[in-house]
Amino acid sequence: MAASHTNICIGNYLLERLKQLGVTKMFGVPGDFTLGFLDLVEDCQGIDWVGNCNELNASYAADGYARVKETSIGVVSTTFGVGELSAMNGIAGAFSEHVPVLHLVGVPSTVQWKAKPMLHHTLGDGRFDAYTKASSHVTISQAAITNTESAASEIDRVLTACITAARPVYLTLPTDMVYLKISAEPLKTPIKPIWPQNNVETEKFVLDDIMKLIAGAGDQVVILADACAIRHHVRMELGELIQKTGFPVYAAPMGKSVVGEDYERYGGIYVGSISHPDVKEKVESAKVVISVGAIKSDFNTANFTYNIPEMKYIELHSQYAKVQYAHFEGIGMKDLLPKLTASIVALNSPSKNAPVPKLEAVIPQDASQEVTQEYLWPRVSKFFQSKDVILTETGTSSFGMLDVPLPSGAVYLTQILYGSIGWAGGSTLGAAFAAKECGLGRTLLFIGDGSLQLTGQELSSMIRHGLTPTIFVLNNDGYVIERFLHGPTRKYNDIQPWRWTSLLNVFGGEEGKTCKSYTVRTRTELSTLLDDPAFAKSDKIQLVEIIMPRLDAPRSLKATADLSSKSNKYAPT
Amino acid sequence: MAASHTNICIGNYLLERLKQLGVTKMFGVPGDFTLGFLDLVEDCQGIDWVGNCNELNASYAADGYARVKETSIGVVSTTFGVGELSAMNGIAGAFSEHVPVLHLVGVPSTVQWKAKPMLHHTLGDGRFDAYTKASSHVTISQAAITNTESAASEIDRVLTACITAARPVYLTLPTDMVYLKISAEPLKTPIKPIWPQNNVETEKFVLDDIMKLIAGAGDQVVILADACAIRHHVRMELGELIQKTGFPVYAAPMGKSVVGEDYERYGGIYVGSISHPDVKEKVESAKVVISVGAIKSDFNTANFTYNIPEMKYIELHSQYAKVQYAHFEGIGMKDLLPKLTASIVALNSPSKNAPVPKLEAVIPQDASQEVTQEYLWPRVSKFFQSKDVILTETGTSSFGMLDVPLPSGAVYLTQILYGSIGWAGGSTLGAAFAAKECGLGRTLLFIGDGSLQLTGQELSSMIRHGLTPTIFVLNNDGYVIERFLHGPTRKYNDIQPWRWTSLLNVFGGEEGKTCKSYTVRTRTELSTLLDDPAFAKSDKIQLVEIIMPRLDAPRSLKATADLSSKSNKYAPT
Repeated sequence: MAASHTNICIGNYLLERLKQLGVTKMFGVPGDFTLGFLDLVEDCQGIDWVGNCNELNASYAADGYARVKETSIGVVSTTFGVGELSAMNGIAGAFSEHVPVLHLVGVPSTVQWKAKPMLHHTLGDGRFDAYTKASSHVTISQAAITNTESAASEIDRVLTACITAARPVYLTLPTDMVYLKISAEPLKTPIKPIWPQNNVETEKFVLDDIMKLIAGAGDQVVILADACAIRHHVRMELGELIQKTGFPVYAAPMGKSVVGEDYERYGGIYVGSISHPDVKEKVESAKVVISVGAIKSDFNTANFTYNIPEMKYIELHSQYAKVQYAHFEGIGMKDLLPKLTASIVALNSPSKNAPVPKLEAVIPQDASQEVTQEYLWPRVSKFFQSKDVILTETGTSSFGMLDVPLPSGAVYLTQILYGSIGWAGGSTLGAAFAAKECGLGRTLLFIGDGSLQLTGQELSSMIRHGLTPTIFVLNNDGYVIERFLHGPTRKYNDIQPWRWTSLLNVFGGEEGKTCKSYTVRTRTELSTLLDDPAFAKSDKIQLVEIIMPRLDAPRSLKATADLSSKSNKYAPT
Repeated sequence: MAASHTNICIGNYLLERLKQLGVTKMFGVPGDFTLGFLDLVEDCQGIDWVGNCNELNASYAADGYARVKETSIGVVSTTFGVGELSAMNGIAGAFSEHVPVLHLVGVPSTVQWKAKPMLHHTLGDGRFDAYTKASSHVTISQAAITNTESAASEIDRVLTACITAARPVYLTLPTDMVYLKISAEPLKTPIKPIWPQNNVETEKFVLDDIMKLIAGAGDQVVILADACAIRHHVRMELGELIQKTGFPVYAAPMGKSVVGEDYERYGGIYVGSISHPDVKEKVESAKVVISVGAIKSDFNTANFTYNIPEMKYIELHSQYAKVQYAHFEGIGMKDLLPKLTASIVALNSPSKNAPVPKLEAVIPQDASQEVTQEYLWPRVSKFFQSKDVILTETGTSSFGMLDVPLPSGAVYLTQILYGSIGWAGGSTLGAAFAAKECGLGRTLLFIGDGSLQLTGQELSSMIRHGLTPTIFVLNNDGYVIERFLHGPTRKYNDIQPWRWTSLLNVFGGEEGKTCKSYTVRTRTELSTLLDDPAFAKSDKIQLVEIIMPRLDAPRSLKATADLSSKSNKYAPT
């Protein structure tokens, strides 16, 4: 291995670091300032190049990969300007939602960077650094490789920042740096997240504070799990807290699936005012709510309608804790959670016996054959299997899935805070690769017809790489989430109808052999398909077009849209 | 009309200004912070909303629209964060290539902008201004509408900057500002570009300098036309210079078609070392070269291989002039050109009789049936008609077209400086709309299979709006321009093969009725198709897949790639 030699070229140093981090796929589009480096990637044992149709899709794929393969990071490689700017929206989404992604950009040589000739892909005015500056607003750390002296330390610095913050970083690699030799010595020391240790005394103070509240709360303590429990790697610690204390546990929409939804002490999704009434009552009447990894964004809280007084609220985060009104900077949950669990176990709190509602999918039994939102989600939930990787796009899908349980071991991906339509289409590519690697099950995507038009060509990359996701296209003739926000009959919410069942074929699939497409128009057709073992096996890429009513949305979307459109003040006042 | 009333809401004020500028189409994707404004757009007489499949495509469409409709600007409307960042690459391309585009972004209300709640589409950390800051690096001016007092002046300021600099500007419109009323009074004064007038004395000095050189050059003066002659609106002044002086005229690649290529004193494309030998000899042996609107980028000059000593070189630009070594800031070509023309006419220079080579398309007569690059371009050039709008994508198409003439009145679009692959796919939508409006002819796109995968879904928008471009897909199995730059047999330059002739159908076209697709594999098949009057009529959207050899490229591309890859130093040293 190159890593064991004394010297290694900068490009391979980077690749070795990525391998150490668990990276096996690099997404992107080749460009003229990346080609020399891509030779190294193509020749690299352990990292495969995955060429995407475009850079936005590539950045989404890297995001999806990192979300599923939680022990790794996502990597997207683009070229100077024309490539990197197209990826920026995907990178910003990773920033917003705490996903560790390296955006690696091939740039002109250091010689050209100094001389600033009017190269193609530039702005034509000599500002070679304009793109880096633009990217600095949506990444947590940036580095430029400009010499052999600092190359290794700069690579290590941004990668460390990436895994520490669980947010994207930006690295430029000039064409003339790729093959320069540097010492391989630093590679002997793997890089790790730099999580500051909790101050012992402060932590004890916080723990005592929390335990006093819990001790006084009787059987009225609940746990509320959210996205940062996944992103900041406390799945295990949270799991122990839940299992060992036996406390009732709920999840925010972005935390869905961090707790197995068939766990007997799991009560469902808490999302403020639009929660299921039983959940709302249980959470809001609790005397103490222990929130783990919260992201209290509008759509994750039903437009900020948490009805939990601060006096009853404990928030544990990656870098701080909050107990009632008191903020404790630097007290991270990773260290704190095991101690909290031990203390609660010792307390033997009666909350372990408090009753918990059950999140159940109830399929409507009316005589209608229309595949309504109310019917769809409970019905597909019966189709899910343990270890499925399930993606929902922002819109009817992400809202519809809230009300139905996922089986234990299922991995659930959605982008509720950033909410970029099209994300799930690209993300599915990365998620499907990661699912294979991690020994997970089927990859299932739920996406609207409007959203899939943004990034639909990436289905061709899935076919190209022999991936076999199943894509449910909710064909309701346009941007339905927007119809509920504003303008239900406006033409700007209309789209061009596509012949969805021919799409896989156009992208190179062979119908019946390497791909299969379906249209279902009735409940019976949908049920029959979902019950078909050949379909459920998911051994080829499948696309299911579900014809749905135009002005229909899940309960939770209607309620959220109503709240959101009010604060947006679309109409004249 | 709203404009004649005393008061008008801010959204309509903006629309009125856009109408005054000649805008009739607004491209974009609806998003939750734009919906209130889009009601106004949909209800607006004179501006049509054109919904795109995604924002990158929308920005390319706005660019293509502005390039063809030279008297107007392009407009792309996106939503906060998720929408605007996806459009950024298209906006940067418009900056690089001097195309006036307004990027209009719907953002949260001013109330939310101050309170900074964790809204969807944000980065989750309260930095509401991060996207504006990112965009500031790729736009020439930015404004945020935040109150009724400054709304009109801020709108006017950025639009004036847009048409003055011929570069993109960025405007944010919060949801709660759209319907607020302001005075319509300023609308009575149309906005105009603010081009500083040339200082009379300096201009006279410059003119004298130039005339001395021309007088001493005998019949050895040539004119070299380039892109900024189009972008900075001196087509007419340049036309008079050329016609009245009779001087031999050549064009740089980015200036192709600014001079009618069938004009008898037009000699073809000058592109440094890779020019046709006759052109190279004539230009480089001239005693004076008058360059109008030059953009001396790498691909526009064959990697900076102009062999024209500064002593013989006169450069006229929008904001400055350069005569030999002397730079004259603030001396713009729009004022100067008519005076220069008059002086030269008075001089009666013998250059008007100097011989000029003729750019001719020579179709190879060998027995091969392979549709090679050498065959393709001369053959399609016989298919062109006056007033055709012809787009070529960066790659084999943009290089291949250099060596063949376009008929007079043809409009030619390509993106040689910025060179973002996929651009032409989206740009064609805007170009086709503008072509209809401007009474131009057919819209013809030449694009490689690799490039069309980036933005291909926008064909569906063309179908949706009944546009009838003809798309020539050069199917040579991957990224051929990159194969010539580096890695001819590398896998990263491969792509997934698509079934191109089914694409229009998938996007909603009805084969034979509203669309028609063809595959041609031989020279005979291509020729027969091009000669078919039904095809040439172009009364429906057409896609022609041309099967071409994998490792074949136009002469000029091979030479440029060779020069460029050397300076890029892809290989280890």
